Amino acid sequence: MTTDQRTAFDTRFAELRERLAEIQDLTSIGAVLGWDRSTYLPEGGAAARGRQSAVLSRIRHAKATDADLGRLIDGLERDVEALEADSFEARLVRVARRDFDRATRLPSDFVARMSRHTSETYGAWTKARPANDFAAMVPRLEQTLELSRQYSAFFPEFSHPMDVFVDGSDEGMTVQKVRAVFAELREGLVPLVRAVTERPEPRTDFVGRAYDVATQLRFGESVARDYGYDFSRGRQDLTAHPFMTRFSIDDVRITTRVQENDLTDALFSTLHETGHALYEQNVDRAFEGLPLARGASAGVHESSSRLWENVVGRSRGFWARYFGPLRDTFPQQLADVSEEEMYRAVNVVRKSLIRTDADELTYNLHVILRFELELAMIEGTLEVRDLADAWHARYESDLGMRAPDDRDGVLQDVHWFGGLIGGAFHGYTLGNILSLQFWDAAVKAHPGIPGEIERGEFGALRGWLTQNVYRFGRSRAAAEVARNATGSELTVAPYLAYLRGKYGELYNLS
Amino acid sequence: MTTDQRTAFDTRFAELRERLAEIQDLTSIGAVLGWDRSTYLPEGGAAARGRQSAVLSRIRHAKATDADLGRLIDGLERDVEALEADSFEARLVRVARRDFDRATRLPSDFVARMSRHTSETYGAWTKARPANDFAAMVPRLEQTLELSRQYSAFFPEFSHPMDVFVDGSDEGMTVQKVRAVFAELREGLVPLVRAVTERPEPRTDFVGRAYDVATQLRFGESVARDYGYDFSRGRQDLTAHPFMTRFSIDDVRITTRVQENDLTDALFSTLHETGHALYEQNVDRAFEGLPLARGASAGVHESSSRLWENVVGRSRGFWARYFGPLRDTFPQQLADVSEEEMYRAVNVVRKSLIRTDADELTYNLHVILRFELELAMIEGTLEVRDLADAWHARYESDLGMRAPDDRDGVLQDVHWFGGLIGGAFHGYTLGNILSLQFWDAAVKAHPGIPGEIERGEFGALRGWLTQNVYRFGRSRAAAEVARNATGSELTVAPYLAYLRGKYGELYNLS
Repeated sequence: MTTDQRTAFDTRFAELRERLAEIQDLTSIGAVLGWDRSTYLPEGGAAARGRQSAVLSRIRHAKATDADLGRLIDGLERDVEALEADSFEARLVRVARRDFDRATRLPSDFVARMSRHTSETYGAWTKARPANDFAAMVPRLEQTLELSRQYSAFFPEFSHPMDVFVDGSDEGMTVQKVRAVFAELREGLVPLVRAVTERPEPRTDFVGRAYDVATQLRFGESVARDYGYDFSRGRQDLTAHPFMTRFSIDDVRITTRVQENDLTDALFSTLHETGHALYEQNVDRAFEGLPLARGASAGVHESSSRLWENVVGRSRGFWARYFGPLRDTFPQQLADVSEEEMYRAVNVVRKSLIRTDADELTYNLHVILRFELELAMIEGTLEVRDLADAWHARYESDLGMRAPDDRDGVLQDVHWFGGLIGGAFHGYTLGNILSLQFWDAAVKAHPGIPGEIERGEFGALRGWLTQNVYRFGRSRAAAEVARNATGSELTVAPYLAYLRGKYGELYNLS
Repeated sequence: MTTDQRTAFDTRFAELRERLAEIQDLTSIGAVLGWDRSTYLPEGGAAARGRQSAVLSRIRHAKATDADLGRLIDGLERDVEALEADSFEARLVRVARRDFDRATRLPSDFVARMSRHTSETYGAWTKARPANDFAAMVPRLEQTLELSRQYSAFFPEFSHPMDVFVDGSDEGMTVQKVRAVFAELREGLVPLVRAVTERPEPRTDFVGRAYDVATQLRFGESVARDYGYDFSRGRQDLTAHPFMTRFSIDDVRITTRVQENDLTDALFSTLHETGHALYEQNVDRAFEGLPLARGASAGVHESSSRLWENVVGRSRGFWARYFGPLRDTFPQQLADVSEEEMYRAVNVVRKSLIRTDADELTYNLHVILRFELELAMIEGTLEVRDLADAWHARYESDLGMRAPDDRDGVLQDVHWFGGLIGGAFHGYTLGNILSLQFWDAAVKAHPGIPGEIERGEFGALRGWLTQNVYRFGRSRAAAEVARNATGSELTVAPYLAYLRGKYGELYNLS
């Protein structure tokens, strides 16, 4: 570029930044409304909150689909060809293009219809689930499926109708790739789960004793702090369904749930959300206020949460460090429990009906079956009205159990009842797979990491993740992040090796 | 109107409603951001929150000043001449006109500048106050004053530069009127305060004993519930400075603060904010989502809070009902205290330094002095850098005491550090004056009210207030509400008579 060209480019680029920052601020404001809805909203406030969120999202949508923004991106795309592909400018323009295309393909009346449908369906689900009334959800879910298909049709460049959703949360991923990865994983998992669940269960009686909830929360927060979650730039509150949300790099919040008669539920939920929060708190500050200041994909995000929850939080090293403080915190309840017993209890493998309660090993079977069910619906080989039965059949074949009702069957997860059918679940398992690729690479670079964990030190691990994953935010696609950080794209082998090693030892498998 | 005219009018009026509802929703979203900032925002989150609030307020401002909205109001103003002045349509158009004129006078870059300045100044104040660092606030406050003057200059129709703010919070009020009312009140108050503070003080030692904070909060909330505050459409949280905020008629929240060594601070703050909340929860539902669904003025709002806090909450009848439950709640701490001693303790008159801690009687002296100081700054007879000294001088002359530092001097109230200088305080005392006008009228209509209070029943009082004040929201100006409800405009006599009667009896004045 000449100096004049550069000056003209800088002006246009500054306008892009400004427009994207405004859209990002509106996204963050929407997140505040959502956080408050889940944490503190009084019962009566829900209707007005729905209206307010809709107003905000309509305004945001208008800004995100503004034709002037489109023209600006068109011009800048040509400009950045003269810059390095790795430059900040080129990265931002690439993401702006992706977001703009995603937003403009959907006609605004379709967006409004979908938004109304989503909120009505969610409302209906909150009633249907406790009432165990899947039949009431069938017509709504049929509409959801129809809307999902229409959505997909606006993106004819994808060869599979579910690809638009898979690619939406995990750029570059396709149904075909996920299918292959899941097949490989399942092949390894099924015999392992069978072998483990044939062995005697470890002792877990003490997990259900009475543990003061406020004390539980404080303990979880102390570990989150050790992990490196900066509470001066975050906080934890209570919700029915734990989540992480981000209002800015300096305001990344998590939520958890806590039960007096469960020592581990709140703790691991806190560690899981802390894993998400560490990602968001450590994105490059240069991206702040822009659409780059988020995770690379659902899968990479989940790799961070699962790494800190499971690979670290359920490791022997972790419990070598934290069992003492936990026993000091609950001396009466844990008087008859050893460190080894605690380690085994937090890694108990048990076939179960509820995904969010599932252990590290069986969890993926819950995910894979959901992925395949939604795929079957999208492909038209499964009717919505048969979904509840198909669900039960899959649980029988994959986990050898059947839910007594639909409440703990097909109605258990909000995902299908809060928006689209397609692409809602696979990211969880992609995250599990990736978490081991990242862990192995981190330990290869810093062999002292396992030893540090035994001392409650997490700086080297967090540092490696920041350096190789977190800081890039959304400026690089997931596949690029994985390749650069680990030397390969998504690969199942390290994850299976980890599971085989850990559970083989725990359950004395030959 | 002909049928055709009526149809055309209905279409235009529906558009007005829709536009005003959107603006109102954006206002409510801003209120959520503000509530979160004061209750749960982590330290690091302040900068981004300031930016988000500014973005939102810029968007809201653009909608509120849209030329099409102006033209719509122009047309509707002509149309509603054919309707009754008291009709819903005429009322809404009148308020829309007022808001539109207020909003269009301020250029949008000025609004953005003010909003940024406000949030930065507030942040600086939260640090400067504990550090007792008034000097750090001087340049910011000078900028606030300058912005306030610029604001005022956009409204040249007002004869006094502070009138735009006085009229802004209390439509129809002027500096001149407030000055006259305050002069009359002060003339009555000064000798009464002198006489009372020459008498021996009642016993108050037990107020400062140790009272569990969670229990204090629960007790306050139980009284708020008795008053009629609907917690399914509201909630209470903790903030440094208590306030009431409204996200919709079904989500009206209050905040309080609580200290272990003060039995009365949290309680009366809760009762005060409950008074505000009762107003907002009982506005006519037909106004919901429109700019009519708020209080008529700062003064009328404050009349409700002061009525429930003081006229009810510090009455002999109230304590006849609630001393028992309070003593049951804190049996050890209140074992040696009688009902009469409690009643006297919550009505102790004591010259003091902190407005929000001041008793019912001296409170107005704190307000009048602030009103006069901000008036002097606006009029240019007091420089910001001399404000701290002027503050101390006025406290010496009016209350015979001097704060040991600025933390408990000029830095004590957020008002000047959270926005504009001018018109921030007078509403409190207008509210006190009005509260007695409303109380007298309510008791005249329902002579059983004092007896009901002794039984913890508040339905007749709340019902009269709803019928005569609350339900009208902002559809009627304050003066009209007062006149219709009490038969006269703002008048000091009932308030002075109440104070003379109550404190004459309490302190045995002849």
